[in-house]
Amino acid sequence: MGKHLTTRAEDYSKWYNELVVKADLAETSAVRGCMVIKPYGYAIWERMQSILDKKFKETGHSNAYFPLFVPKSLFEAEEQNAEGFAKECAVVTHYRLENDPDRAGKLRVDPKAKLEEELIVRPTSEAIIWSTYKNWIQSYRDLPILLNQWANVVRWEMRTRLFLRTAEFLWQEGHTAHATEAEALEEAKKMNGVYANFVENYMSIPVVQGVKSAAERFAGAVETYCIEALMQDGKALQAGTSHFLGQNFAKAFDVKFATKEGGLEHVWATSWGVSTRLMGALIMTHSDDNGLVLPPELAPYQVVIVPIYRSDEEHEAIEKAVAPIVAELQKADVRVHFDNRDTHKPGFKFNEYELKGVPLRIGIGPRDVANGTVELARRDTLTKKSIAQSNLVTEITTTLKEIQVALFERAKTFRLEHTTEVDTFEEFKAVLASKGGYISAFWDGTEETETAIKEATKATIRCIPLDKITEIGTCVYSGKPAMHRVLFAKAY
Amino acid sequence: MGKHLTTRAEDYSKWYNELVVKADLAETSAVRGCMVIKPYGYAIWERMQSILDKKFKETGHSNAYFPLFVPKSLFEAEEQNAEGFAKECAVVTHYRLENDPDRAGKLRVDPKAKLEEELIVRPTSEAIIWSTYKNWIQSYRDLPILLNQWANVVRWEMRTRLFLRTAEFLWQEGHTAHATEAEALEEAKKMNGVYANFVENYMSIPVVQGVKSAAERFAGAVETYCIEALMQDGKALQAGTSHFLGQNFAKAFDVKFATKEGGLEHVWATSWGVSTRLMGALIMTHSDDNGLVLPPELAPYQVVIVPIYRSDEEHEAIEKAVAPIVAELQKADVRVHFDNRDTHKPGFKFNEYELKGVPLRIGIGPRDVANGTVELARRDTLTKKSIAQSNLVTEITTTLKEIQVALFERAKTFRLEHTTEVDTFEEFKAVLASKGGYISAFWDGTEETETAIKEATKATIRCIPLDKITEIGTCVYSGKPAMHRVLFAKAY
Repeated sequence: MGKHLTTRAEDYSKWYNELVVKADLAETSAVRGCMVIKPYGYAIWERMQSILDKKFKETGHSNAYFPLFVPKSLFEAEEQNAEGFAKECAVVTHYRLENDPDRAGKLRVDPKAKLEEELIVRPTSEAIIWSTYKNWIQSYRDLPILLNQWANVVRWEMRTRLFLRTAEFLWQEGHTAHATEAEALEEAKKMNGVYANFVENYMSIPVVQGVKSAAERFAGAVETYCIEALMQDGKALQAGTSHFLGQNFAKAFDVKFATKEGGLEHVWATSWGVSTRLMGALIMTHSDDNGLVLPPELAPYQVVIVPIYRSDEEHEAIEKAVAPIVAELQKADVRVHFDNRDTHKPGFKFNEYELKGVPLRIGIGPRDVANGTVELARRDTLTKKSIAQSNLVTEITTTLKEIQVALFERAKTFRLEHTTEVDTFEEFKAVLASKGGYISAFWDGTEETETAIKEATKATIRCIPLDKITEIGTCVYSGKPAMHRVLFAKAY
Repeated sequence: MGKHLTTRAEDYSKWYNELVVKADLAETSAVRGCMVIKPYGYAIWERMQSILDKKFKETGHSNAYFPLFVPKSLFEAEEQNAEGFAKECAVVTHYRLENDPDRAGKLRVDPKAKLEEELIVRPTSEAIIWSTYKNWIQSYRDLPILLNQWANVVRWEMRTRLFLRTAEFLWQEGHTAHATEAEALEEAKKMNGVYANFVENYMSIPVVQGVKSAAERFAGAVETYCIEALMQDGKALQAGTSHFLGQNFAKAFDVKFATKEGGLEHVWATSWGVSTRLMGALIMTHSDDNGLVLPPELAPYQVVIVPIYRSDEEHEAIEKAVAPIVAELQKADVRVHFDNRDTHKPGFKFNEYELKGVPLRIGIGPRDVANGTVELARRDTLTKKSIAQSNLVTEITTTLKEIQVALFERAKTFRLEHTTEVDTFEEFKAVLASKGGYISAFWDGTEETETAIKEATKATIRCIPLDKITEIGTCVYSGKPAMHRVLFAKAY
């Protein structure tokens, strides 16, 4: 286990790439831009899935599954949406291979097996789902429809990075149908709130809830709500989005319902999603130069126990002392792993679990057995202390809660220190160049200004915060009147 | 809710197709051969997933995720496997769409965005996984690798049926790597046993465990273990398979490991999977002319409560009586649903839940409230009885267990009645034409005989049962010597 990570100060981007691989989270695959999610990384994603899935169900949603493929004619029905994704679509054109007559044992695409209509591998599922909802919705009694699916999607990005931007990624996508605009709007906001709650309380990442500017909106949406997180290098990361789609998809697919009053109206829609990109946010928010740091709520193992011994007698005595500790921790619903491998030395294991971000490590040697103690090490602070075995469960459950909060607070402090109000464009550029982070500035609300700032600085409007204060100001770029400050940042 | 199902006697196949749609399990989609799994059907699949996932983890496996796409050059590396799937592959050839210059607002495949190498949408993942394992395995210390993935796969079948045979389906695929042949063989058998246990104890479907004949083996396998179930129309259904892959994939992808003794050897492999096809088996084994019949272990709702009232006062009194019943059942971990919709009459609800196979239905009216009783109806037997509310939890938990066993026993009796030992080919054909089911007959072990029987009768060798008795006999077709009986049947 070569631990030597590039440090964040040396090269943040390189540090991230190395960490993802060395902590056994994911790796690149033989398929351009697609990743292999390794068991340890997948176990974290499974924790996220299970918590989110519960929250979706608690808010009245059910899971379902829609096809991987979207026929081109359906794909192009909602024009804005189609245009937004057309340039990054994997397209299935054939359905059979045949033996290559020129290369023995090799295959080639069978030219006779060309599809009449090409199939798009879903980059998102609004089109296929709304073409289905059309058959499900006749009357107000059929509404609302509150569905979610866990699925893989493909967007043929040119520049990819593990978790942050991959050609194939895993996500969930909620797709809801409503009788009224107000209900759909409320749903979109509610689910953005569910995401904020999850990311803050389970991932320990503070987020800003806001709406996107028109230029940054989801293709086909009327309004895009989002949660934005700030990484340690001062760049923002969009961690989740929830879209109010108005009647755009209902109109594109002609989905109408008979109202209670006897009318016929187009249905209102939302969609919302988070993806394996969250793994990138998790890694970049908390980790340090020694490796991953995981919030206890998401750690596959919250506690790892490493025995330290020289002789078989010592080993046996330790095993005897560890057995009840494991049992008690499991009883207290702590995810504990006793690493009793005899193929690796304690030092190797210490490094490994530091790299993998296990929140707490228990070391136990012959002297601990004699004294009824263990050594408890915290991953986030890298501090150690000796504690009594009799106190262990309480100490551990308390410390896990402390770590969960401490990580959040540390990230929140970082964000506070990296959120700067500026009133001139000179200041804007200076802050961006020096410490980065969020720049809170007045914006005149026009796309010209937004584009001009982006071209000049690479910073984009991350969001118009939901808790913005209406105040009259002057646009930091154009000098025109502005109604409130918005958050700019360079972003992933 | 049009309940009128075609009966099984009228047309079994039509009955199945109607039932899947009317019970809200799945429907065909706009994409040829691909299905939409509706929320109720997906909830059953989720129950299956969660139980199986737990069993996989208990037997030491972890989940991971590998790419959806397989580059053609990797796909063709293991020739047997490639040949087995080549004729039903969806192939991605392009990665971009562009505006169609001839049709305003429409898109076409961008001919400039042709992939250098075509990508196969995975029909199974051995190739992409073993090309990855090559980098993970150097020494015996890296073994075993025990991974599973939950994924979608695509096989471009020409004739499709909901759940039973769809172009895209959901499944899990285990892929393990071992240092020895014996260990890999044991793994393959063990996982077949895990499947048998799951299908029998949770799905209430009796299965025969066996091995496939060479002709029916998975493409690329040395031995295929399977579980076979028998449907009510006398046709068999392969419910799960577990493959001992020998060193075929290790050789194709050059995966060697340094042994403890200092040698260098190819790795041994297994793969195993069950899919949404299990939904088809579940539906066809237990259901009747009134609709779906679900084993309690897999039912999204085990108990549904339907209030029967005329006036608001009666409704209120019932609601008051139902509240503690729901609370107590939930406390006892019974999945209960109180259908308090005022938009539908009790009769409508009764039909709906019968169609959807909810194991137990509680009806409660004003007289029940007065008497402290409810009416309890069993879906499997269609019997009803009045019971005291004070006894309800015990009665329900006991009855749910009874139903789980009763369904299994009923299916087992059916199988017994539909398993026939025959000793002549005339008898073989007569039994197949009259009652179908399994035909237990001596087979000489040759592919010629197997093919000849298949061509003459459409019956295939479902498996060579693991518990076969070695006895010398005469092949039912060729008259040549045979070592044991095997099971023939027509199959899905």
